[in-house]
Formats: sequence, structure tokens, C-alpha cells
Amino acid sequence: MYKAKINITLRKSILDPKGKAAHHALQNLGIKNIDGVRIGKFIEMDIDANSDKQAMELAETACSKLLANEVMEDYQIEIENN
Amino acid sequence: MYKAKINITLRKSILDPKGKAAHHALQNLGIKNIDGVRIGKFIEMDIDANSDKQAMELAETACSKLLANEVMEDYQIEIENN
Repeated sequence: MYKAKINITLRKSILDPKGKAAHHALQNLGIKNIDGVRIGKFIEMDIDANSDKQAMELAETACSKLLANEVMEDYQIEIENN
Repeated sequence: MYKAKINITLRKSILDPKGKAAHHALQNLGIKNIDGVRIGKFIEMDIDANSDKQAMELAETACSKLLANEVMEDYQIEIENN
């Protein structure tokens, strides 16, 4: 059994209104030394596969078919063997 | 300048309807070997601090004061030095 940890982020060129709002709220709370806040998705899943490679392929398929919007988002997959 | 990467996840005991929906949709797409899908938030921010420790403290303050709901969510912070 493998565990996939996937970070999905908006591409750098795309405006991130959630991140902007969080940044603004942090400043209002007096936390001033923070900049460039960007908010994405973190997805964990258990994958039943025979190898790291197969687990990675399945996770990539899941991302490209459903979880990520490749026009606007990038994703990074990390596979852990449990 | 430091970069903080924060993963915010729902606690294990809390039902994750987004994750359940994604799991169901993956199965409908024929991706059957995946289970335990959980969806959280991934937050990146740049922190202007004098040390790793100070950057970590700022990121923790940001999480506990604003970004995470500690009743329902856990968070994990990773600090990178740029």
C-alpha cells in the first residue's frame, strides 16, 4: 500500500484571490513580515499498487483526469511506501 | 527570506465530504485502486525573518490565528531558506 501526497497550486501567472485575502487578513492581525501568500489544495490518498512507479502513474492519472485543472494549476506528487 | 509550505488537513476523526466526492468520482472514472482520499489546503508564503526559528514561529502564529481551524484541522509547516 502506498500513500500519495499531492500539492496542487495555481500557476504563478494566475491571480490567487484566496491568497490575497489571507495575506490581507494576516496584515490586519499585525503579522506584517509575510508576503506572497498562495493557497492551493493538498490531497492525500492510499493507493493499492505493485510498485512506486505504478502508484505514481495512478496518482498522475487521478490528477490529470479529475483533481487538477492543468490549464490553471500545477501539481506535485510524492509517493510514500507504507 | 524564507518560504513556508503549510499543509492543512482535516483531523482523521472528521468526515471529509470533498474527499469522499473525489473518491467516488475517481471510481466512476475507472480508477479503482485508490482509497482514503482526503482533501486539505496547501499554503505557500514568503516570510521575512532572521532565522528558521523565527520564520517557523511566524508561520505557526499565522496558522493558529487565521489559516487553520485547530478544532477540526491539523497543520504541518515546512520552512525553506531561499
